[in-house]
Amino acid sequence: MSTVIANGTVVTAEATFSADVRIDGGVISAVGRDLGGPGDTVIDATGRHVLPGGVDVHTHLAMPSFGTETCDDFSTGHLAAAMGGTTSHIDFCIQPHGASLRSALDLWHAKAAGRALIDYGFHVAVTDPRPEVIDEITTLPELGVTSIKLFLAYRGTLQVDDAALFSCLERARDSGVLTMVHAENGDAIEHLMAGAIRRGETAPKYHALTRPPQLESEATGRAAALAEVLGAPLYVVHVSCRGALERIRDVQSRGAPVTAETCTHYLFFTKDDLDRDGFEGAKWVCSPPFREAADHEALWAALRDGSLSIVSTDHCPFQYGTQKVLGRGDFTRIPNGVPGIEERMMVLHHAGVNGGRITLQQFVSLTATAPARRFGLGGVKGSVTVGSDADLVLWDLTRDHTITAATNHGAIDYSLYEGMHVRGVPVTTLRRGEVIVDGGRLIAAPGTGQFLQRRT
Amino acid sequence: MSTVIANGTVVTAEATFSADVRIDGGVISAVGRDLGGPGDTVIDATGRHVLPGGVDVHTHLAMPSFGTETCDDFSTGHLAAAMGGTTSHIDFCIQPHGASLRSALDLWHAKAAGRALIDYGFHVAVTDPRPEVIDEITTLPELGVTSIKLFLAYRGTLQVDDAALFSCLERARDSGVLTMVHAENGDAIEHLMAGAIRRGETAPKYHALTRPPQLESEATGRAAALAEVLGAPLYVVHVSCRGALERIRDVQSRGAPVTAETCTHYLFFTKDDLDRDGFEGAKWVCSPPFREAADHEALWAALRDGSLSIVSTDHCPFQYGTQKVLGRGDFTRIPNGVPGIEERMMVLHHAGVNGGRITLQQFVSLTATAPARRFGLGGVKGSVTVGSDADLVLWDLTRDHTITAATNHGAIDYSLYEGMHVRGVPVTTLRRGEVIVDGGRLIAAPGTGQFLQRRT
Amino acid sequence: MSTVIANGTVVTAEATFSADVRIDGGVISAVGRDLGGPGDTVIDATGRHVLPGGVDVHTHLAMPSFGTETCDDFSTGHLAAAMGGTTSHIDFCIQPHGASLRSALDLWHAKAAGRALIDYGFHVAVTDPRPEVIDEITTLPELGVTSIKLFLAYRGTLQVDDAALFSCLERARDSGVLTMVHAENGDAIEHLMAGAIRRGETAPKYHALTRPPQLESEATGRAAALAEVLGAPLYVVHVSCRGALERIRDVQSRGAPVTAETCTHYLFFTKDDLDRDGFEGAKWVCSPPFREAADHEALWAALRDGSLSIVSTDHCPFQYGTQKVLGRGDFTRIPNGVPGIEERMMVLHHAGVNGGRITLQQFVSLTATAPARRFGLGGVKGSVTVGSDADLVLWDLTRDHTITAATNHGAIDYSLYEGMHVRGVPVTTLRRGEVIVDGGRLIAAPGTGQFLQRRT
Amino acid sequence: MSTVIANGTVVTAEATFSADVRIDGGVISAVGRDLGGPGDTVIDATGRHVLPGGVDVHTHLAMPSFGTETCDDFSTGHLAAAMGGTTSHIDFCIQPHGASLRSALDLWHAKAAGRALIDYGFHVAVTDPRPEVIDEITTLPELGVTSIKLFLAYRGTLQVDDAALFSCLERARDSGVLTMVHAENGDAIEHLMAGAIRRGETAPKYHALTRPPQLESEATGRAAALAEVLGAPLYVVHVSCRGALERIRDVQSRGAPVTAETCTHYLFFTKDDLDRDGFEGAKWVCSPPFREAADHEALWAALRDGSLSIVSTDHCPFQYGTQKVLGRGDFTRIPNGVPGIEERMMVLHHAGVNGGRITLQQFVSLTATAPARRFGLGGVKGSVTVGSDADLVLWDLTRDHTITAATNHGAIDYSLYEGMHVRGVPVTTLRRGEVIVDGGRLIAAPGTGQFLQRRT
Repeated sequence: MSTVIANGTVVTAEATFSADVRIDGGVISAVGRDLGGPGDTVIDATGRHVLPGGVDVHTHLAMPSFGTETCDDFSTGHLAAAMGGTTSHIDFCIQPHGASLRSALDLWHAKAAGRALIDYGFHVAVTDPRPEVIDEITTLPELGVTSIKLFLAYRGTLQVDDAALFSCLERARDSGVLTMVHAENGDAIEHLMAGAIRRGETAPKYHALTRPPQLESEATGRAAALAEVLGAPLYVVHVSCRGALERIRDVQSRGAPVTAETCTHYLFFTKDDLDRDGFEGAKWVCSPPFREAADHEALWAALRDGSLSIVSTDHCPFQYGTQKVLGRGDFTRIPNGVPGIEERMMVLHHAGVNGGRITLQQFVSLTATAPARRFGLGGVKGSVTVGSDADLVLWDLTRDHTITAATNHGAIDYSLYEGMHVRGVPVTTLRRGEVIVDGGRLIAAPGTGQFLQRRT
Repeated sequence: MSTVIANGTVVTAEATFSADVRIDGGVISAVGRDLGGPGDTVIDATGRHVLPGGVDVHTHLAMPSFGTETCDDFSTGHLAAAMGGTTSHIDFCIQPHGASLRSALDLWHAKAAGRALIDYGFHVAVTDPRPEVIDEITTLPELGVTSIKLFLAYRGTLQVDDAALFSCLERARDSGVLTMVHAENGDAIEHLMAGAIRRGETAPKYHALTRPPQLESEATGRAAALAEVLGAPLYVVHVSCRGALERIRDVQSRGAPVTAETCTHYLFFTKDDLDRDGFEGAKWVCSPPFREAADHEALWAALRDGSLSIVSTDHCPFQYGTQKVLGRGDFTRIPNGVPGIEERMMVLHHAGVNGGRITLQQFVSLTATAPARRFGLGGVKGSVTVGSDADLVLWDLTRDHTITAATNHGAIDYSLYEGMHVRGVPVTTLRRGEVIVDGGRLIAAPGTGQFLQRRT
Repeated sequence: MSTVIANGTVVTAEATFSADVRIDGGVISAVGRDLGGPGDTVIDATGRHVLPGGVDVHTHLAMPSFGTETCDDFSTGHLAAAMGGTTSHIDFCIQPHGASLRSALDLWHAKAAGRALIDYGFHVAVTDPRPEVIDEITTLPELGVTSIKLFLAYRGTLQVDDAALFSCLERARDSGVLTMVHAENGDAIEHLMAGAIRRGETAPKYHALTRPPQLESEATGRAAALAEVLGAPLYVVHVSCRGALERIRDVQSRGAPVTAETCTHYLFFTKDDLDRDGFEGAKWVCSPPFREAADHEALWAALRDGSLSIVSTDHCPFQYGTQKVLGRGDFTRIPNGVPGIEERMMVLHHAGVNGGRITLQQFVSLTATAPARRFGLGGVKGSVTVGSDADLVLWDLTRDHTITAATNHGAIDYSLYEGMHVRGVPVTTLRRGEVIVDGGRLIAAPGTGQFLQRRT
Repeated sequence: MSTVIANGTVVTAEATFSADVRIDGGVISAVGRDLGGPGDTVIDATGRHVLPGGVDVHTHLAMPSFGTETCDDFSTGHLAAAMGGTTSHIDFCIQPHGASLRSALDLWHAKAAGRALIDYGFHVAVTDPRPEVIDEITTLPELGVTSIKLFLAYRGTLQVDDAALFSCLERARDSGVLTMVHAENGDAIEHLMAGAIRRGETAPKYHALTRPPQLESEATGRAAALAEVLGAPLYVVHVSCRGALERIRDVQSRGAPVTAETCTHYLFFTKDDLDRDGFEGAKWVCSPPFREAADHEALWAALRDGSLSIVSTDHCPFQYGTQKVLGRGDFTRIPNGVPGIEERMMVLHHAGVNGGRITLQQFVSLTATAPARRFGLGGVKGSVTVGSDADLVLWDLTRDHTITAATNHGAIDYSLYEGMHVRGVPVTTLRRGEVIVDGGRLIAAPGTGQFLQRRT
């Protein structure tokens, strides 16, 4: 007895075509014409497009940061994700100083336990790269964790030096683990921030001015060079500017195994948004900061030419009313991060596909297929392909919607996209063949999301 | 009553997975588990990989050139193609001076009539760009022809000037037609060739020395710039060198709709091959000429990073014994062109996939999916997708083979790859659901190949 | 009996220092302390800076163009030049179609005869590159002409094709002659202009919009590539945009003998100036057209890093009241060109040196030393060096001046720099040791300027 | 009563011309024709070229390093320099950990006291950048020291982190001090070296293999980016490879105040020289290491196009017989450094000027004029200009010489250029108007060299 999604239009990274999708045991067992049979559960998808559920490889749920914690946990964050058409994500488990990677993962498993609606994996952010910690990288794959992250910014808390980066790249390479990097020069940024505060430049906009794009380009080029020397795979997170793209293309053109993402919001906002009236700009404080309009066009071109292959959210939500305000009078204390897990697919689809900048196939690739493949979930997630998990989203590409925090589903009290009109929304979300969201209603029970054992 | 290819491993540009493929009316009707039913014709693909048949978008069959004609016609060329796993191609219809594009197409339709084994389309090479000819571009889509080609080399015969290129790019853009370009600076090349002949430099190697890579890079940059100014789609054929790649990446990074191919042979040979003993080097005379080993690595990197998205053959075969020899004593009379339609997929698979340079998915994309989509055949050819033509090739990825002209199937009397060992060969070829080659035997009748009406 | 310029501050491309300059026979015979002796004519330069007289290598005096003729001849143009501190120039002799280069030079010699105040040389613009004309290039050095120019724009009148460019580059290389190039893609521009006129876009601003920067970058890259292939010296005139600079740096970094200039006005104006009220924008119509403010910064950086080594004027003056107006209602008929021979040194000094963008030494190099050396006048012009012609200008770097057509000295009825304030003006001009301008008064007689026999 | 150098050919960075040079009080008082007068001391320079004495801005005399000390002190090093035509240099004073910059300078002043033959200045290498040390930078100009150096390599001894680099760049900028940087990524290099030793890769060639060019390019780009952000002047020492040149050109093209040098030896040797028979390769161990032949051409092109404006020696001599051998069996213990202070001008002149790669003027600029100007000695050293110190070298450009350690004059027991033939040698050296070397004989007394108070 199968479930059949009938009469829809299937969209993959490769093609768009009319077909039914048959599901057995939570897995896609066939894609084709007239697949429904007696006894099957049929979901009518007439007028709907059947896309793979989104895979968001960059989120921060219930993460301690700036003396507080991101406001979405694995319950509210998953609800928002599912409502937005995302059916799996990979969250950053942050190693506490002094802790082992294993114990850090235990902490994060506990955060998810009993709450998860969608499937989830973990990257481990290595913040305390003692020799025994670096040794521990080799054990991560058997824990289902095949990616680590290093920060080149946030001196004194998360930042590691080049010695650690180089050692980790090498060890990760030898273990089949992908190294991710937050590429900004933290040393220079700390210096610039201290200077700004000394001069009384405390407003949110100074967050952007003390993190100039050259410092992202520099750190991107540095990580890329170290990876190239070692032949080690590297993934640059949240690329925001042209200079960083140049550095990435440079090593890619010589064959180095370097891939990169941008995040949804870098396609929409500029540093002027940090200068909004009053303290409003604090809502737009994230790192790297927003850049110029010309960078938007460069990022879209990179999404098209493949220099950037993934769009993630870096969903790192802090409530404006209770958390962003901690930095009133001192921008360095504004928690860094913005929400986006619910909006990602809708706004990218609208601006990208409706806006003529990318095709529907590219949209699927950027939001689901490519992230799944890059992060050890190829054949499992992110594709309407036989054998893959039936994580599917039925979209109504003709339906209009206005984004507002008021109707969003997470714990966050604002949306960067407040008032933005989109055409095209996810209406039904299936996770492993089970409908978890339909017509804006949550159907699945908390705790039904599963941990993803990723492959090397 | 369907045909079912059972128990194979399906490979698409997106994924590799175990699945049956069901075919109805020559079209893929389902991909999935256990698709065989009573009455179905079952082709057992156990141990085989099921790939989309190759799409070769750059061939020259029965083409008048250098006072002779390419030695493969639509009969021998198609046989060679089918044996090599290629199930459709797009050939260049060359406008004779004074003729209309329509009459040129008629000539080429006549060449194919009654001979074709595989499906074929036509590009039109505009060589005589009078105003009424440029006007005629707008009528091509209704003839099923959605791409034109312009030569920036071969002064006096095929070459057009920038005024024609610019006009054609604009008109093609407005008609939904893709403009292709042979990018070498013909004016400079003619001058260098004349100088070489004057100095008595007549051996084949001077073919390469009088067509230096800067003249390809220049013309590539020129065509790309003109296309960028107009926002017109451009496709650069047979990219052979790093400099041209730089120019292509430059405009791609600014969002210009420029795509490009390389040809199989540019990944394997260098200009030293033109200096082989005796007149042997004439076998390697093609334009652009072969470059340096460093260019090979640059081309592979470009295939990986997407700057180049297609590998075609530029199959343009002249027999060594009867045709290449026309240029003995004067390299400018050696017919320009090399064979490759039969070897393309095998040698690319072996060097690329077995060699660890590209994945099996990338191989499928480069040889079938991407060319079909770029040239108006998306959803029809090049993909193991529901609704697409069942052009499929069953590969045995473990079988060894040594390439030799002796066992090749075309009319050509040599192979560039003579003696090269490959692992992985196509064993069964289906065209629209019909087995046309099996185990090295031809099964289909001449004339069963069909003309491809391509979309804009 | 010598002339001694005493007590001034000498400025060379290399250094600034206190010294007298002794002149014998029109030539600098010594630079040093306390050079005055009994019987010497002493010019007191206390408080003055002694600079080499300007060398302007790009002018068009009395040139037929757009059905009219540039309004400055060798009389008015030389007066304006001398008043502005320029003591020699090289004018473009334009080959009429059908004429020999020799006869063209005869025409230009006749224009200068009896009128010249400052010394002058000629480049020959080859517009009709028949084989015998190309042969004639080899005879130019003995006529004192060691540079030719080719236009890649102005199809139908001045433009040559790549075959001619390549032949000329080669022949010039072999003759010790420098090839100069106007680098814009004329074919594409003609097409864009025709389209604009067809759409009724007739205002001056469309001049800029139909000559986009990509078409300059393209042609620059093309000429540079052809020169690189031949190892032929190339000089790119009037570089106006970043893209062209990238192409120039690219070949320079590989060692190709390519040099380039910008013109004064490209450092000051943008395409918005063509959109001034009424028909006023016509005053700013020149080719290449003005670009964006960002290009200004790129040009200044290039002047500093040496990618551009010369600032010339492209002085090509057409009166607004009687000549520019020919293009009212059709921008394609506006004579292309702007004045600048009088303002060049003052505005470049003010914006460059006072503005902190270049040093006083760089100013001397860009306006005098480098142009003299590049064009076969090293050791003769452009330098306060023993053995060089005593072409000297005494500057008062503290004097303020407001530029206005009303007090300018040429035949032109407007100034691009109208109302611009500068600090630093030339007060005394010597040509071969003779004071020709002093305190704004002309002293020398017409016809005393001499033709410059340049070296290869 | 003056000294007059009569009848020679003067060469400056700007021109070559026949002239006498008059010297009064050690300073050039005039350059001109027939300057000799009654009572003058006349040095006949017939047949000689009169060049400014070389200025070598990168030397290490009597420097403790690798547990030993460079073998030339201010006596032997100065003798070698003067014999090779160099009349002033700037040595690196290395701050000992824990010491103040002032006390470090005292140490270095003591090294020079009583020994100096030629004039000398100091850079200070900041190795222990405590806050009070960074504050001390502001006091350096009044000590005549206007440049500091930071090492991004040699972790654990000389290396500083980006925080220190950034702070120093800013403080130096505000004090009119130039920041110099040794740009290699020390963290990565240490890791690679440790790995090599662990694998038993101990021969000299592994020195090059563990310092790949990407790690120089990276660090160069990093320092350049930090300088660009601050608008701080930066000078990159000993550039050895193409990648680093690209990074330098990139920031120069945006107007950042970044200049750079290469050293003589990088124009001549490759990493293959480290693989010479036996332990011989140790003679070629320096950092950055030697690269590929293709890098030579890139460096020559950069010297021509101005991306590199200075050629220094990085003279850092360790005897082969007693010092280099410390690293037998462990390349990481080979003292890093090569000699070159005596050969610099001869080999650069021969390969550069005789070899047609640079002009005689460029040679003067690269070895004398540009280094003097860049390092606060403009108007004092490096130029045959009125008012400058009469540091002059009479060259015989027709004399042949074979370089060999046997006839060299320093304390070093080998020459990298052993057996190399050059045409063109310095025959007479004057320092502040006094002949100190003539015909291979030393004339001046030790201790007559003076400390150079440099300007900001």
